[in-house]
Amino acid sequence: MAVKDFCTNGRIVFSVTQTDGRLLRGEHTRRLILDRAMQIASVDGLDGLSIGRLASELEVSKSGVFTHFGAKEELQLATVRAAAEVFVEQVIHPADQVPPGLSRVWRLCTARLDYLRQPPFLGGCFFYAAAAEFDAKPGRVRDAIATGLRRWRRRHAVDIAEAIELGEIVEGTDPDQLAFELDSLIRGGGADALMFDDPSYFDRTRTALLRRLNDVAAPHARGALAD
Amino acid sequence: MAVKDFCTNGRIVFSVTQTDGRLLRGEHTRRLILDRAMQIASVDGLDGLSIGRLASELEVSKSGVFTHFGAKEELQLATVRAAAEVFVEQVIHPADQVPPGLSRVWRLCTARLDYLRQPPFLGGCFFYAAAAEFDAKPGRVRDAIATGLRRWRRRHAVDIAEAIELGEIVEGTDPDQLAFELDSLIRGGGADALMFDDPSYFDRTRTALLRRLNDVAAPHARGALAD
Repeated sequence: MAVKDFCTNGRIVFSVTQTDGRLLRGEHTRRLILDRAMQIASVDGLDGLSIGRLASELEVSKSGVFTHFGAKEELQLATVRAAAEVFVEQVIHPADQVPPGLSRVWRLCTARLDYLRQPPFLGGCFFYAAAAEFDAKPGRVRDAIATGLRRWRRRHAVDIAEAIELGEIVEGTDPDQLAFELDSLIRGGGADALMFDDPSYFDRTRTALLRRLNDVAAPHARGALAD
Repeated sequence: MAVKDFCTNGRIVFSVTQTDGRLLRGEHTRRLILDRAMQIASVDGLDGLSIGRLASELEVSKSGVFTHFGAKEELQLATVRAAAEVFVEQVIHPADQVPPGLSRVWRLCTARLDYLRQPPFLGGCFFYAAAAEFDAKPGRVRDAIATGLRRWRRRHAVDIAEAIELGEIVEGTDPDQLAFELDSLIRGGGADALMFDDPSYFDRTRTALLRRLNDVAAPHARGALAD
């Protein structure tokens, strides 16, 4: 048995325990397969996933992988669902820890930036890569990705609407429009930091987000943007 | 011989002339191959390109394709270069037609939006898809994509700097920061319009761009943003 660590930016992002040649069973195997599948998909795309490749990399039998996921499309769908869980845990949960209002809107932005600075996946943001890969390929996988993205955007818009109700963001602000703008700036920064190997794009993003939020923040609430 | 039209949004985006089974030669063939390669790559990614697939779809021999491009990486690089030419023709040239200053900055934005609304490629913006596919894959193809993206961003920043010099954008504006923000909003809108099948994201983008540019426009120059 051997433990392998997979690192990004010098940080261990996941470890797998290999049991040479033996068929692993149960939830543990399912988890192992999905962890590896998310890493592969973040670098080589969801179409880069195959039962054979996973079996070979994890040193389990093809039937061991097939038992858990069946056909390739099921594996892709399970991988999208698993990546959505990681996103919820790393981005949504931190925002849930702060009270509703401008603080929570801002925490959702900074949690997303933290996630992009230290991505849990080797190839950066899973959903950014998956969306670009499947946006022109109709089918269940594309639908699952779109559902995840819609939920994230909706959550952002709901937090903004709540901040407006609380009087911390000025009346007349369109929550969907603002959520779209914040999300576009964050996606752009994450994409550029990765493509140009230049983490200063996270600072550019932060600058842009703070300016946009200061524009719509009620004067008494601006302190929420100080962190 | 048969002519095939490939459409997107009901508009013919490219036509190919097939000569059944015969080996096509010269620049015409090279052009045919690259046109098809850009379409395939925009939907299935640059890794979806193969000499065999192109030969089969264009009904020419594999050696006919190989003669022009050699190995797969050369084909990918030639496809990136061809897509950059299309981008220059459809986005940069229209901006060159208007005088320097805020008008040109805005024209570059609207030309990019026009390009995304009626994309010349079946899978939407070629560089958006290519960047997401290769951002975590070091090598010559990634470098070529990054070079194209850097040039585009640089051009935007230079136009902004010129508008500042002309007094049409206020002093103290950071051209690189503003170029990053405009580009992120445009990429976000294009991605969402495609992913959510919802062209209203182009309107959201336009709204966001106009607000951002009005913020930095000198009062006497704001008329340039009226179109």
